[in-house]
Amino acid sequence: MGLTEYSADLLVTGRYLYLQDKDKTLIKDGGVAIYRDTIIETGPTFELATKYPHAEQLATKNGLIIPGLINAHTHAAMACFRGLADDLPLMQWLQEFIFPAEAQLTGDIVYQATLLSLAEMIKSGTTSFCDMYLFAKDVARAIDESGMRAWIGEVIYDFPSPNYGEVAAGLEYVEELFAGYGGHQLINITVAPHAIYTCSPALLKRLKTIAAKHEALYVIHLAETAEEVKEAQERYGVSPCMHLDNLGLLDSKVVADHSVKLTDQEIALLAQRGVKVVHCPESNMKLASGIAPVPHMLTAGLTVGLGTDGSASNDNVDMFSEMNAAAKLHKVKDLDPTLMPAETIFDMATMGGAKVLGAEKFIGSLEPGKKADLIVLDMNQPHLTPLYNIPSQLVYATRGADVVHSVINGCIVMKDRVLTTLDEGKILSETAILAERIEKSRG
Amino acid sequence: MGLTEYSADLLVTGRYLYLQDKDKTLIKDGGVAIYRDTIIETGPTFELATKYPHAEQLATKNGLIIPGLINAHTHAAMACFRGLADDLPLMQWLQEFIFPAEAQLTGDIVYQATLLSLAEMIKSGTTSFCDMYLFAKDVARAIDESGMRAWIGEVIYDFPSPNYGEVAAGLEYVEELFAGYGGHQLINITVAPHAIYTCSPALLKRLKTIAAKHEALYVIHLAETAEEVKEAQERYGVSPCMHLDNLGLLDSKVVADHSVKLTDQEIALLAQRGVKVVHCPESNMKLASGIAPVPHMLTAGLTVGLGTDGSASNDNVDMFSEMNAAAKLHKVKDLDPTLMPAETIFDMATMGGAKVLGAEKFIGSLEPGKKADLIVLDMNQPHLTPLYNIPSQLVYATRGADVVHSVINGCIVMKDRVLTTLDEGKILSETAILAERIEKSRG
Repeated sequence: MGLTEYSADLLVTGRYLYLQDKDKTLIKDGGVAIYRDTIIETGPTFELATKYPHAEQLATKNGLIIPGLINAHTHAAMACFRGLADDLPLMQWLQEFIFPAEAQLTGDIVYQATLLSLAEMIKSGTTSFCDMYLFAKDVARAIDESGMRAWIGEVIYDFPSPNYGEVAAGLEYVEELFAGYGGHQLINITVAPHAIYTCSPALLKRLKTIAAKHEALYVIHLAETAEEVKEAQERYGVSPCMHLDNLGLLDSKVVADHSVKLTDQEIALLAQRGVKVVHCPESNMKLASGIAPVPHMLTAGLTVGLGTDGSASNDNVDMFSEMNAAAKLHKVKDLDPTLMPAETIFDMATMGGAKVLGAEKFIGSLEPGKKADLIVLDMNQPHLTPLYNIPSQLVYATRGADVVHSVINGCIVMKDRVLTTLDEGKILSETAILAERIEKSRG
Repeated sequence: MGLTEYSADLLVTGRYLYLQDKDKTLIKDGGVAIYRDTIIETGPTFELATKYPHAEQLATKNGLIIPGLINAHTHAAMACFRGLADDLPLMQWLQEFIFPAEAQLTGDIVYQATLLSLAEMIKSGTTSFCDMYLFAKDVARAIDESGMRAWIGEVIYDFPSPNYGEVAAGLEYVEELFAGYGGHQLINITVAPHAIYTCSPALLKRLKTIAAKHEALYVIHLAETAEEVKEAQERYGVSPCMHLDNLGLLDSKVVADHSVKLTDQEIALLAQRGVKVVHCPESNMKLASGIAPVPHMLTAGLTVGLGTDGSASNDNVDMFSEMNAAAKLHKVKDLDPTLMPAETIFDMATMGGAKVLGAEKFIGSLEPGKKADLIVLDMNQPHLTPLYNIPSQLVYATRGADVVHSVINGCIVMKDRVLTTLDEGKILSETAILAERIEKSRG
């Protein structure tokens, strides 16, 4: 299996290569041959090494090579609020801590905090993510330095934003994002209405027009809490999901984050419309929002990705931890240990996320023609021994800290746990200063 | 605060020292002065360094020093079954995979697999644990080499054991354990009836007599599943908890593992009898057993510790992961984000576990006169930045891999993530051979 008209310039090899293709191929002593940003061949190391003798080799004796993980919903810059306040009622947490802190945000703070989250993401195995937050140009500036692959949107709502001010300026800001990043090889712009309870029907429709014009994803928090459903019923006489459908907004470009409170009929409707869902179990647990009916969604044929949400409500962006929680939570909810088996969970964190982002032809598995986004794990550790089954080990035993190398778009962004695109020491020291300012401004 | 008639021989210092005492004292740039196996003083580093100039220094610039974690329920040797089979109905998992694999066990396999789990426990911050499994003398042999602190029991039931054979020989084996390890400074012997559904009333009572004679803990799986409760109702006309009480067995030396299916009245009864409970949320999630009513237990005044259960049903023995799950699970179960706050969870994993084991005077916090069991975490990492609140960071963001040093009973058992008492490389290679044999014997 190869695109052998090219000569590889990078060869990543290890003890195990798990392609995460349709056949769940496992190659022992295997490798991935990369030309520029693209995978050109996968196979046994001895064959590839003979065929591509001039390629740079990244070899890991006890390494397991897998596709990079896809974090399909996060707010990267919220890393600066990690642990600022926890274990509080949702409204008190938002109104006394998060909203006042966010009101003080500037582009430079968001840039700095995004860098922190990028470092954490790379170091825990994420290679692609979908972000929605304020000051998206500054988010993009940080991502551009990191070499990560991302989908990003400026959060839009009807009340004034600390970034763009009034909503009309927000719409202009979104157009500027498209103008600035159209054609960027790693950054994709999305349209990101915050939620139905913060955006008027007119704004939701206006934003869909902008998304359609740019053929962009329409990313929205949907049915996250019972309160959201209750408020929609009171204001619009229907659920959040039916409200969007009544406005004619549901289609295959819509990414519905959380989707905790969906009825069976709504799940069927979302499947029919081709809407994609992102499951964020750890945030939904910590904020006590509820448990999304994911097994039912999958049975209904919905595409579901996995996301960490922001670090204020998790409090990390470690997709290995998220997979672990997702695998266990539904079993105990429905008292059925066969639900959400390890393979299903690993699918959600790879091909599932790729499909959510409309990028399944480019990422999510290690196959010739796809972009070279992969990670290498050090399996020679007590907590990863013995190794009977790879998806099971990935979901139930592996931690973010087990990632030793990361390659994104053909570039090595981490080698032996040292970041190559970002200055980790500087990020940590500058974030510590930023955190002191955030804490002081709380008074 | 010190026992200053002694001169320290080890001084462990770091950026933060969190004593986990009654006042939740945090000392910036603090340290712990240790004489032999005992903490003699805690305080600012500059004071201790002046006072004990001849002590060996273990200094960690960005370190957070906390008490070692206490894993109050595990089956260490089950590490050799990690990932052997997952996502199956409980009975199929037990009957087709775990029981046949356990029937092949020998003392040497248990010794080898226990070493693996000890390495994983030390590397993820556990310093004390309570184990129940087969071939307990071989478990003890491994623990003795590791320098860990442990409570261990030979699992006793009415059917023949691959270790001792018939139950009469099992009772002798237990007496031999007490004879062999009475007075050992780190190993404590318990009496460990497997459960009420595998032990006759006569056996349960006989074992309690043995425990009482040795003033030992009586460790038993209790009310883990709905099936256990149903079977007890059918066989004895009462719940598992009431069955033990009817036999006169419930007292302050009883450790009830899991305790998923308890009524309000049973919780009140256990509190009244002084029974201790061990909560194992990740195992209960993965096996779909249910969610133990821990918030209610705590309100009722029950002492609750935290345990990982064995690596076949978790699939790790990482107490940081267990704390994370415990903190989030009850919030989403009861839709209340204020339940099980970080401080409560960290208490369960330290002082709670100490109280469960009747060792609260010796371990669970860093105070003069207590045993020197502590760990040091490297806080200068992206996922641990910023640091606003220590219990929150420990419960929601820290991973086992963040532990850099571990001191147990005054001895450094891990320094810069290198084990000093165990040969990690040898353990990994020998376990890999063992795992091949286990896999082959499945045919």
